Amino acid sequence: MTAEAGAGGRPLAGLRVVECATYVAGPSGGMTLAQLGADVIRVDPLGGATDHRRWPLAPNGGSLYWHSLNKGKRSVTVDLRAPAGKELVTALITAPGADAGVFLDNNVARSWLDWPALSARRPDLVHVHVQGHRDGRPAVDYTVNAAAGIPDMTGGESDGAPVNHVLPAWDLLTGQTAVVGLLAALRHRDRTGEGTYLEVALADVALAGVAALGWYADAQLSGADRPRHGNHVYGSFGVDFPTSDGRRVMVVALTEGQWRSLCQVTGTQEVFAALEKALGVDLEDEVTRYHHRETIAAILRGWFAARDVATVSRELEAARVLWGPYRTATDVVRDHEAAPASSPLTEVVQPGIGRLLAMGSPLRVRAQEVPPRPAPVLGADTDEVLADVLGLGASEIGRLHDEGVLAPTGGRG
Amino acid sequence: MTAEAGAGGRPLAGLRVVECATYVAGPSGGMTLAQLGADVIRVDPLGGATDHRRWPLAPNGGSLYWHSLNKGKRSVTVDLRAPAGKELVTALITAPGADAGVFLDNNVARSWLDWPALSARRPDLVHVHVQGHRDGRPAVDYTVNAAAGIPDMTGGESDGAPVNHVLPAWDLLTGQTAVVGLLAALRHRDRTGEGTYLEVALADVALAGVAALGWYADAQLSGADRPRHGNHVYGSFGVDFPTSDGRRVMVVALTEGQWRSLCQVTGTQEVFAALEKALGVDLEDEVTRYHHRETIAAILRGWFAARDVATVSRELEAARVLWGPYRTATDVVRDHEAAPASSPLTEVVQPGIGRLLAMGSPLRVRAQEVPPRPAPVLGADTDEVLADVLGLGASEIGRLHDEGVLAPTGGRG
Repeated sequence: MTAEAGAGGRPLAGLRVVECATYVAGPSGGMTLAQLGADVIRVDPLGGATDHRRWPLAPNGGSLYWHSLNKGKRSVTVDLRAPAGKELVTALITAPGADAGVFLDNNVARSWLDWPALSARRPDLVHVHVQGHRDGRPAVDYTVNAAAGIPDMTGGESDGAPVNHVLPAWDLLTGQTAVVGLLAALRHRDRTGEGTYLEVALADVALAGVAALGWYADAQLSGADRPRHGNHVYGSFGVDFPTSDGRRVMVVALTEGQWRSLCQVTGTQEVFAALEKALGVDLEDEVTRYHHRETIAAILRGWFAARDVATVSRELEAARVLWGPYRTATDVVRDHEAAPASSPLTEVVQPGIGRLLAMGSPLRVRAQEVPPRPAPVLGADTDEVLADVLGLGASEIGRLHDEGVLAPTGGRG
Repeated sequence: MTAEAGAGGRPLAGLRVVECATYVAGPSGGMTLAQLGADVIRVDPLGGATDHRRWPLAPNGGSLYWHSLNKGKRSVTVDLRAPAGKELVTALITAPGADAGVFLDNNVARSWLDWPALSARRPDLVHVHVQGHRDGRPAVDYTVNAAAGIPDMTGGESDGAPVNHVLPAWDLLTGQTAVVGLLAALRHRDRTGEGTYLEVALADVALAGVAALGWYADAQLSGADRPRHGNHVYGSFGVDFPTSDGRRVMVVALTEGQWRSLCQVTGTQEVFAALEKALGVDLEDEVTRYHHRETIAAILRGWFAARDVATVSRELEAARVLWGPYRTATDVVRDHEAAPASSPLTEVVQPGIGRLLAMGSPLRVRAQEVPPRPAPVLGADTDEVLADVLGLGASEIGRLHDEGVLAPTGGRG
């Protein structure tokens, strides 16, 4: 890593953000800001919030989830029910400076952390509030995904019941959407001096995401739900094939060029030419490939079944076919360990856990990777932040520890 | 909508962004910028790019996909192979002004649109380049998702083969990540005068997303892949239940409070108390609920099977249980039509298609919704943009049409 991509050269260097959020959406947003150079202070209640022990866990019991979602932040813990604790957090959020006064939260029923209360203290605050539903009712990725219609489209015709996917996609997307709003509002403040309050609900992110693909408009105008079609790509050709060694690959042909490459490398040009003639169709047309996806897949299957994944990989790459291997999480780990220098994943030494696989920002800045930093130990930065940001002296901080507003000195969190 | 939330009050009002991107990731990012008030100019080759006819289609053949992903932009089409066309696009991207010089693209093999070429013309350019793989090889959502390990975790134990989910989650996430990078780099330019080149690869977004959940670290430290467990939520209690009228609901109990509410409304407190005693476990512990998820689901199933979805909805809401209905896309449309005033979806009149369901930004700005605007007609803003941004006169624009650098006057795209 060169100095250019170091902390000083990161685009958000100097910015300070206070985060009071749990689970995936808000914390992943805060982590993104930290990766781009911001000083992100995550505030939790004493002992940690409800996400601090979330699965998966390391063998020593530490949460791999929490430590993976909070990398590169500072951690402050305060008694959030004590008036003095509330005042400390309010002061952190509304501390003066053009590079401060930025707050990301997902609190429910903490009215002292809402926009009216905070903007009364700092009118030019930038505040992004993450919600479940827009009316404040709770929601999680699995509930909004079901309501958005995705599990009904997932899986095969014969599955009957809807299939939940395991990726909390709406959580991750809400986190990035929150950061987009935050940075847009910050630009507005830089230009006009005005603060902005933004809200973003997980349920709305899901509806907006599906609407952006035209899938609701399709249901509206056609009056029908699209068919479930297993592992096939919708409206084009793409499906998975098993290889001779029990692995599996995903192969896609969106464009004419990709389709021709696929036919060429598998030696199926003549078969498909004969099929086109027999059916009176043109398989160079994407939608025609979609209509005949089962037949195309049946014709191609033998080529994949006769080769192991290494041979398939080599031949498809040489032919510039659009494809990817299926991997399990342990395959991803093995591939990383076989070639760590070229892997986007990196090991970090995580206090409280030890060495673990992590990844930095997927954004590369000026051709430089942004490597991961470990997560904080819960509460470990409390004293430092109160001194830095609020200018509290050692005796005052000591008194707050003694009074129980902060954790007992030397205690955890 | 009040004036405050109108175009002038949107946080990115005044910003101009040139987009030269296709499919979901880049265009969804550009749409986000347009929703927040930026003037986003999408540049396409004459006749449109490969995504212009992508499924789903309206009954009249227009792409609901393209028109849903490009809402609120202006559309310019130019012969991208002609030297004069290349010069026009380069001039648009590098036009002077603190609110211009921002470029979002996913081009492959167009070296005249790369950072060295463009920054030579405008050194303070903010340029975000979206890729498939970081080495420039193509990738799509389905191929990176397979390689990231998600289909292997999706579906039930008995499915055997991995299950692809249909949501292009990584595409949507890459779009928002690109915008995060763009706005961060814009802030850096506002402060320092420096331009920034950022790259973001779909494959890296997928690996970083899964790594952020701790799932690779889990595979690394445990040496094993997590089990596939159908529609259950990992590490907690959450699963789907059929109702008496053939509908289905997703029910989740992450916290003690949610678990108690669920037991109370279903009248199962005594059964679970007896079960806890018999097994010697505490079901108020989240992970214990995960271990006993099948038993818990079996005990709860009868309550749901005895009620229709309307009754289930009423009772769960009253009890503050965390839940959501499963809906199909046509259910979403029907629910919107039954109560359009309270629906986050809106109808827009889309030139070239007609009325269709759309949604604005999921971000609400100062408690105001940001409603959707229609997509442009392909190429319709070409003359206006060349006049506005480059100051070209009518005769010069006429000559470009005559020479075929722009589409024939009155012609489509």
